[in-house]
Amino acid sequence: MKIDSLRKLYIKELRDLYSAEKQILKALPKMAKKATSPELKAAFLKHLEETKGQVGRLETIFEAQGKKGTGKTCKAMAGLVEEGKELMEEDIEPAVLDAGLIAAAQRVEHYEIAGYGTVRTYARLLDESQAATLLQQTLDEEGATDKALTALSESVNVEAA
Amino acid sequence: MKIDSLRKLYIKELRDLYSAEKQILKALPKMAKKATSPELKAAFLKHLEETKGQVGRLETIFEAQGKKGTGKTCKAMAGLVEEGKELMEEDIEPAVLDAGLIAAAQRVEHYEIAGYGTVRTYARLLDESQAATLLQQTLDEEGATDKALTALSESVNVEAA
Repeated sequence: MKIDSLRKLYIKELRDLYSAEKQILKALPKMAKKATSPELKAAFLKHLEETKGQVGRLETIFEAQGKKGTGKTCKAMAGLVEEGKELMEEDIEPAVLDAGLIAAAQRVEHYEIAGYGTVRTYARLLDESQAATLLQQTLDEEGATDKALTALSESVNVEAA
Repeated sequence: MKIDSLRKLYIKELRDLYSAEKQILKALPKMAKKATSPELKAAFLKHLEETKGQVGRLETIFEAQGKKGTGKTCKAMAGLVEEGKELMEEDIEPAVLDAGLIAAAQRVEHYEIAGYGTVRTYARLLDESQAATLLQQTLDEEGATDKALTALSESVNVEAA
């Protein structure tokens, strides 16, 4: 099917994010399990709960459009998750692993910040105000998670150094 | 070799970024060729030149450490580039492709913003002040590129809608 409108690109981008979120849902519990710092473990588990809500928001948007969210695999997120997995399999000091997990998670957050920023802007242009509001909520959460990880990294990095 | 210090993680992260930049160097000319908007084409070509400088900065840092930059493939960037490639192979309206290319490029920029933010912070902690300065320069360029793409997207998205 030809992608001949911004609306079609919008749906394609939303499906990419839906696939990304589903992959993150599987990765976060493993990252929380591997983290040594109790604060980092808690941050991953908190973001796991937020991610479930973000998946729900995307499903609400798909339902309102009469579309399905499935059918696309986000290859970029597959690469990000694979790199996180490889890191967790390394022979690595626990404190250094914590620092590396934060680095990996911040890459994931930034992927989402870019992706949600794009679809939020498309939703506004397409007069999808309910969707734009939901996507902005997720975007705000991703930004807050990224900042929380930066704050956590201050003590974790010193521990690793 | 066990990753038992932040310094080893720092080198590993720098190699990841070096691989990412090398992949971007190959992708940008193709994106510039496919872009319809002359401003977008020019933005990709400008960033291609900047990327060459960023590769040079990483090489300076590796040389100062007596290390090689090669030996790691950034799988996340491979996924990002693959998604951009798939988009360019779609049956897609030129104006919509421009919007999609901006979306893809902003995901790439955000990967780099997260990655360079991390290594810049590590360099400061490790008292690598020259490296920290170079990495901050690249980080500033990536941030400026992301903002320039957002500005460009305003007209491109309206054209696509």
